[in-house]
Amino acid sequence: MPEMDVVALQELLNEVGAPYLVDAVMESGVSLRLPIAEAHIRPGGTVSGPALMTLADGVAWSALLAQIGPVVSAVSTSLHIDFLRRPQPVDVVADGLLIKLGKTLAVIDVAIRSSGEEELVAKALVTYAIPPSGTR
Amino acid sequence: MPEMDVVALQELLNEVGAPYLVDAVMESGVSLRLPIAEAHIRPGGTVSGPALMTLADGVAWSALLAQIGPVVSAVSTSLHIDFLRRPQPVDVVADGLLIKLGKTLAVIDVAIRSSGEEELVAKALVTYAIPPSGTR
Amino acid sequence: MPEMDVVALQELLNEVGAPYLVDAVMESGVSLRLPIAEAHIRPGGTVSGPALMTLADGVAWSALLAQIGPVVSAVSTSLHIDFLRRPQPVDVVADGLLIKLGKTLAVIDVAIRSSGEEELVAKALVTYAIPPSGTR
Amino acid sequence: MPEMDVVALQELLNEVGAPYLVDAVMESGVSLRLPIAEAHIRPGGTVSGPALMTLADGVAWSALLAQIGPVVSAVSTSLHIDFLRRPQPVDVVADGLLIKLGKTLAVIDVAIRSSGEEELVAKALVTYAIPPSGTR
Repeated sequence: MPEMDVVALQELLNEVGAPYLVDAVMESGVSLRLPIAEAHIRPGGTVSGPALMTLADGVAWSALLAQIGPVVSAVSTSLHIDFLRRPQPVDVVADGLLIKLGKTLAVIDVAIRSSGEEELVAKALVTYAIPPSGTR
Repeated sequence: MPEMDVVALQELLNEVGAPYLVDAVMESGVSLRLPIAEAHIRPGGTVSGPALMTLADGVAWSALLAQIGPVVSAVSTSLHIDFLRRPQPVDVVADGLLIKLGKTLAVIDVAIRSSGEEELVAKALVTYAIPPSGTR
Repeated sequence: MPEMDVVALQELLNEVGAPYLVDAVMESGVSLRLPIAEAHIRPGGTVSGPALMTLADGVAWSALLAQIGPVVSAVSTSLHIDFLRRPQPVDVVADGLLIKLGKTLAVIDVAIRSSGEEELVAKALVTYAIPPSGTR
Repeated sequence: MPEMDVVALQELLNEVGAPYLVDAVMESGVSLRLPIAEAHIRPGGTVSGPALMTLADGVAWSALLAQIGPVVSAVSTSLHIDFLRRPQPVDVVADGLLIKLGKTLAVIDVAIRSSGEEELVAKALVTYAIPPSGTR
């Protein structure tokens, strides 16, 4: 069961200055929304690659912390992302699913879509290192 | 709609000497099985990392060719894999889902499990380059 | 031979609003600097992961365009990054080396260090799709 | 300083049945050779992608164990590879360089070439988990 609910995760994101809205906290994952007003639009009317990567990292961090509690010292050790389609100039929605939660490593599978669309805009796999209890 | 069905894909795999059994061909994906007898078992009774990577590449290739037909000259341009758990010494099952099918590039999302288990053993993202029609 | 020199690349980066300084343009690569004043510092005094990913993408884009000229419609198709050490709160320097320049795909090997340090902070591999000449 | 020299690493590779020849052990890396007779040649006269991935994993494992000693229980946690060019039907040479050696994780940068060629055939980044001393 997750340690944090939608309200608690939203408060944590607000505290660290992340521009995301929490759409849902599931059994082992979360769903975040990047409002288009906050997205970095590129010439051509699309959300930039760096904005998508930052969102992938943010949803991975959120999925991990929702599960284990606010261990803000968790750090990402690697991120892989495939950019599949140009996003529409609308909100971007990211689902992060914990596919491994070990003692020292967590892996999160990330799917990114334009709001209201079924097709994927990007797919990512993100690894986080979990600090030992004594050093948090 | 896929160009190849289970029988056609199985024949193609047999021709190229791949040791996989086709469990299913779906609308935009396939499911392959590596029989444990063919798996490269490591000391400790688990399927080796290279056997899992080779399976990830094989299911990606199969998902692409099932969709577009037997373009055997398609080549992988990149592969990313996260090893999540030690597989059991049983058959290994891989699902490959086409998440992008462009003119020149295809991306396949791969999930690998021990047969009969729900938990993932490995997760991969594989990119294939599709040769232009004239050069196949 | 590169199509752009330090001055031309710096002008292009300024035009698109990228905060990087061009340290060097080499035979098949470039070196960029992210001034610490522009880096997004995290609590704890280190440069954030998203700032490093954005820099990796930026140096890959710069290495490609320095080589082939200002084809600003080139888009990244994938990015893989390993975060190795916490960066110091100083300028961050990124070297991008073109290790493949094909007709439709380019791959750039990226090494990121804290200014003046030898040890790597992060290592990345970035793939860019090159649009056909007629559509640029 | 590495814990193992060329002879010790070659003996270890022979014991586990790996088909590689150790060309060199450097300060924080190793160089392995896959004899063409052992390479899995594909139709078209080139070394297969799976053979290159297996070699990338093997050289990463070797670079780690040469450095820390024969901790054969080290397991890879992720592998990313970009395939850049079709290899020639000659020996394949892989250099593995330790770019991070932490307490629990090691990252190895891998460069693969056809023997005698300068151009890269593939580039990979491989992560290994190092088991705690007490459990080796």
